[in-house]
Amino acid sequence: MMKRIPDVVVRRMPLYLRAVEDFARREHEVVSSQELGDWTGLTPAQVRKDFTFFGEFGKQGIGYNVKFLRQQLREILRISENVHVGLVGFGNLGRALAHYLIDSHVTDNPEFGSPDKLRVTAAFDVDESIVGTDYRGMPIFHVDRLSEIVHEHGIKIIVIAVPARHAQAVATKCAEAGVKAILNFAPVTLNVPDEVKVHHTDLTLELQSLAFYTA
Amino acid sequence: MMKRIPDVVVRRMPLYLRAVEDFARREHEVVSSQELGDWTGLTPAQVRKDFTFFGEFGKQGIGYNVKFLRQQLREILRISENVHVGLVGFGNLGRALAHYLIDSHVTDNPEFGSPDKLRVTAAFDVDESIVGTDYRGMPIFHVDRLSEIVHEHGIKIIVIAVPARHAQAVATKCAEAGVKAILNFAPVTLNVPDEVKVHHTDLTLELQSLAFYTA
Repeated sequence: MMKRIPDVVVRRMPLYLRAVEDFARREHEVVSSQELGDWTGLTPAQVRKDFTFFGEFGKQGIGYNVKFLRQQLREILRISENVHVGLVGFGNLGRALAHYLIDSHVTDNPEFGSPDKLRVTAAFDVDESIVGTDYRGMPIFHVDRLSEIVHEHGIKIIVIAVPARHAQAVATKCAEAGVKAILNFAPVTLNVPDEVKVHHTDLTLELQSLAFYTA
Repeated sequence: MMKRIPDVVVRRMPLYLRAVEDFARREHEVVSSQELGDWTGLTPAQVRKDFTFFGEFGKQGIGYNVKFLRQQLREILRISENVHVGLVGFGNLGRALAHYLIDSHVTDNPEFGSPDKLRVTAAFDVDESIVGTDYRGMPIFHVDRLSEIVHEHGIKIIVIAVPARHAQAVATKCAEAGVKAILNFAPVTLNVPDEVKVHHTDLTLELQSLAFYTA
């Protein structure tokens, strides 16, 4: 049905969603590509071009209906229904991510007035002192049970927050378990089958690219 | 001297650096754009095009001298000399970032055999129970002293890991203090003058864009 969507376009969709939620909260009924461009820092032409990948959202010269666009964006992003997320690695970084995702963020984001449907339902670690405990109701399993729990919980996305040397083994397990997408915080490139999408958050790369701007 | 470099190109430079360091470690003397492309997942044409922004690094049909390219990339990224980094917010996330940056990562990265020059030299918080203490030798200051310490330490990059509602105030302080670049972990868009470069790491956006691939 849809053309193959470039990853850069997919990555802008949540930003449009955030923008349109802001317009919804301010009780706008219609939003133009110019307004969406101003909000997101993109040109109106880029906004319109991105949307053409998904069909017709608005009418020339009239703009987009805010409620319709919001619902369309949620459906495009597959977050109109619950999406279950697992977290592998419950050390300092894993704990901080859980705090961020569970307490303050994804599950019910007051900042933007829109509870989205990303639910962190399980964490995994190898540390026997935390395996079997829970974090604010989220159970922590031994990583050996990854495949079993992924199936049981219907987990589609895994966040990897383990040391670099363990990340590939975890990614391989995820792929074998049928996980669809990985958000990788370990500073290594992961080899997984093409059907598993990997996004990489690498602090070192981020800081090195920012260093370019320090001159 | 140089053309204005698109941010996407700047962001790929650390990846090329990591690739070329891997080739250096494996004692390659020369590397081709094909090999760099295979390593980074980009096309050889993209590699060559990216490098044209910075001048001539190699010869047609011969490839790039590994040591020369590594040094060039470090200089382009301004990490051939020390770059001082500050961390604002020392809660769960800030502590995890400090752990990652100081203990395991940027300051001396055994994973890739190349100590780089990004040094996290100070953290800032408002919690009086930690202000005045240190984390593995890195002092934690009250955020009221941001401007003073930024000047004293020559800090060029600030990592913001505070709650969303405080992030703009911190960013404004950073800009006033002459910080050149901000890596923002708070889920808000920051308004700063054009001369301050902001990169945004937003877990919610990352997970929402990955949700697209879960169908």
